[in-house]
Amino acid sequence: MGAPLEFYFDFYSPYGYLASTRIDEIAARHGREVTWRPFLVGATFALTGARPLVEIPLQGDYSLHDMQRCARELNVPFQLPENFPKAALAPSRAFYWLVDGQPEQARALAKRIYHATFGEGRDSTAPELVADLAVPLGVDREALLQGIQSPAVKARLKQETDTAVQRGVFGSPYIFVDGEPFWGNDRLEQVDRWLAAGGW
Amino acid sequence: MGAPLEFYFDFYSPYGYLASTRIDEIAARHGREVTWRPFLVGATFALTGARPLVEIPLQGDYSLHDMQRCARELNVPFQLPENFPKAALAPSRAFYWLVDGQPEQARALAKRIYHATFGEGRDSTAPELVADLAVPLGVDREALLQGIQSPAVKARLKQETDTAVQRGVFGSPYIFVDGEPFWGNDRLEQVDRWLAAGGW
Repeated sequence: MGAPLEFYFDFYSPYGYLASTRIDEIAARHGREVTWRPFLVGATFALTGARPLVEIPLQGDYSLHDMQRCARELNVPFQLPENFPKAALAPSRAFYWLVDGQPEQARALAKRIYHATFGEGRDSTAPELVADLAVPLGVDREALLQGIQSPAVKARLKQETDTAVQRGVFGSPYIFVDGEPFWGNDRLEQVDRWLAAGGW
Repeated sequence: MGAPLEFYFDFYSPYGYLASTRIDEIAARHGREVTWRPFLVGATFALTGARPLVEIPLQGDYSLHDMQRCARELNVPFQLPENFPKAALAPSRAFYWLVDGQPEQARALAKRIYHATFGEGRDSTAPELVADLAVPLGVDREALLQGIQSPAVKARLKQETDTAVQRGVFGSPYIFVDGEPFWGNDRLEQVDRWLAAGGW
């Protein structure tokens, strides 16, 4: 089995959500696993001069239309949360609080958070909601709420975000396949072909 | 037969070049034709705050790598011209000088210009080169060189660019399928599926 794909995403990225619904399946078709890596895409904006997509004239309107269209094609629910976008601190920290000890729960929580955010349009930057979503996975609610406030977890998210930027990540989703970078949900078909062909 | 696809592109857009090598074929599979519409994508930058792709930190390096990779997958030659990017005035004006009277030559010239620019890395903003590329198509060299300096042709390019922006076009390539907008070479597979399904 080849090395896991590295899946960088921001919890408030609509295209990250769309990619999250199929990245594991695409990797599995080629005998690969996926390492999920939430980060804060906003941290890259100072460097690239980018702005949140929906705030850009012309491109923002296109994107709002396109997100819905892509979701319909993938047959997944889609609803933009109110006050979009926000910095997804609580969900990202909850993921890293869990991931070393309970990697499967961390990934399951990530999927539940993405579904709540863009499948149901809920505000997953609220720690209470993140905790609610974690409880059915067997996670202790109070431990999570305390854990995401710990300096170690805050530092971990910052470090993961810094690492992403150092590796050239400037958007969400961003996928590395054996070091080869692919940006965007609309590149997953190319990732699929890349894996099938062993690159080109 | 359905309405033609509308293919907006900038002659100095690498991804426009990549799309140009296959847009006609994709449309033909679904019994469609393609209306080619060069415009100056730089005119949209003031509105969107965008910069030329290759000048953006992180994203620029990614794009340079990605263009080559996409060209390899499509099996088309790729070489970035020197002093990229430039405003592609001469090629765009030559196209509009030809298109009303000789639409087939206009499209053939567009393909030759794109091939010279990104297949061979030549500077197609030079009117002399555009004229050289037009001669084998039976176009009168001096007439073309004079034509692209005419106020009517200059106004036509400006008007086509303004129309593009009014329709929401903010990048190259940008394709309308029965009014439905698709941005980017990497969306041509989705255009193909959209045409096959009759939308969704």
